[in-house]
Amino acid sequence: MEFKTKLSSAVQQNDTLLCVGLDPVRDNLPDHLKNHGNAFFTFNKAIIDATADLICAFKPNSAFYEAEGADGISQLHDTCRYITDNHPHIPIILDFKRADIGSTNQAYSKFAFDYLGVDAITVHPYLGRDAIQPFLDYKDKGIMILVRTSNPGSGEFQNLEVDGVKLYLKVAKAVQDSWNANQNCQLVIGATYPEELAEIRKLVGDDMIFLVPGIGAQGGQTDLLRGGFTKNGDGLIISSSRETIYASGGENFADAARAKATELRDQINSYR
Amino acid sequence: MEFKTKLSSAVQQNDTLLCVGLDPVRDNLPDHLKNHGNAFFTFNKAIIDATADLICAFKPNSAFYEAEGADGISQLHDTCRYITDNHPHIPIILDFKRADIGSTNQAYSKFAFDYLGVDAITVHPYLGRDAIQPFLDYKDKGIMILVRTSNPGSGEFQNLEVDGVKLYLKVAKAVQDSWNANQNCQLVIGATYPEELAEIRKLVGDDMIFLVPGIGAQGGQTDLLRGGFTKNGDGLIISSSRETIYASGGENFADAARAKATELRDQINSYR
Repeated sequence: MEFKTKLSSAVQQNDTLLCVGLDPVRDNLPDHLKNHGNAFFTFNKAIIDATADLICAFKPNSAFYEAEGADGISQLHDTCRYITDNHPHIPIILDFKRADIGSTNQAYSKFAFDYLGVDAITVHPYLGRDAIQPFLDYKDKGIMILVRTSNPGSGEFQNLEVDGVKLYLKVAKAVQDSWNANQNCQLVIGATYPEELAEIRKLVGDDMIFLVPGIGAQGGQTDLLRGGFTKNGDGLIISSSRETIYASGGENFADAARAKATELRDQINSYR
Repeated sequence: MEFKTKLSSAVQQNDTLLCVGLDPVRDNLPDHLKNHGNAFFTFNKAIIDATADLICAFKPNSAFYEAEGADGISQLHDTCRYITDNHPHIPIILDFKRADIGSTNQAYSKFAFDYLGVDAITVHPYLGRDAIQPFLDYKDKGIMILVRTSNPGSGEFQNLEVDGVKLYLKVAKAVQDSWNANQNCQLVIGATYPEELAEIRKLVGDDMIFLVPGIGAQGGQTDLLRGGFTKNGDGLIISSSRETIYASGGENFADAARAKATELRDQINSYR
């Protein structure tokens, strides 16, 4: 199914714009799982089952699996497969922030879409559209381009002015005007930059969906994201990782994640 | 050993600036290896042994291993380990073009430096220095920042002018002036942009090393790279992937790769 259709259906079915980031780090896992053989997959399964009816997407970040090598990648595969098998209506966003030349991006596409079977990916804009084209050619997948990242120093290049327009706005406009021919592009904008989020919404209108990471541990606040909603009160995928998955470090971690996800979902809905 | 020391020693010992890209694609492998269980590792071992005395670095691109999932990552691991064990004086550059927020980059560092044990990595500049800092903190590793990429449309953002200066020059200058506090940064500049290569050499002087991919299949020509050398006739790592590793599609692929690498090494040396 097309990513946008799947997303929209999950948003409606679960009445939510919340996304949970599946970013396991061995040291942060509950003690009883730390030395478990399939620790990441076991941890993820519990989080997934506890939150699947509260969220509109799961977002595993590839880095945390790569840190464990081939075994980590295998657990990322099992995690994606588990979601597809058990919660088939929930789209998976692979947060892997790739971009290389075209022929190399074909290989990355195989990893994301064939091996893992995810519905959407995040990509860097720096190489330009021609390099990204192999991703864009997947009409049914979501291609989420980094526009304004959530880190404190993201302005170093992103705020540089080109003909009086900041680079991140140039990127947003290029995606809307040229990269989005297949209507499968989304923009990534950090929750830590709520003013820029509102500015980009104004710039590109209501047709584009934004992935918004950075609430919680990174300091982004849900009440400041209002300016990013479309007129219908949607258009955002608001992602929480550490705050939700590590809500408790004990054996009740899944219940605690569910409580935190419920709180965040309701909080976000109250502002829509 | 520090990346720069290891590289400089390999450059001198083998009298070469050539780097071989280990980018296996199943369809391009010789027929007798296509269905081999450890096809990538078997292929790489032969290429590595056939070229190790002709090159100054090996550069596996992570994408091609990821395309085969966990098994591919396992073969990337075995490839890196094989180089370290059998050709310990040759540095390994992991071409993975990553960049995320700081805490995520720590996970990518674990993949590159702990799991694979490589000497250098390639990274995207878009997020800015604060995000890249966890990489930069590895003082003995090479951190190679994308400045001007080899793809035909790389100018889309890289050529935008900020105060009359093109973005890729802004990136090069920022790396030199601020990111390079540990003297462990290099710049990535496509061989398909020889004028820009010369321009960046003039801008940053002779202290920085450039990784130059894009000769051969992508159209970059070694004779046009002269402007990139330092006064001593070095300062470049010139990478060949497809042209060398697929020089023959037959059982003699390793001999053919050796012949091509010899030709390229000598060609490059004739211009130094």
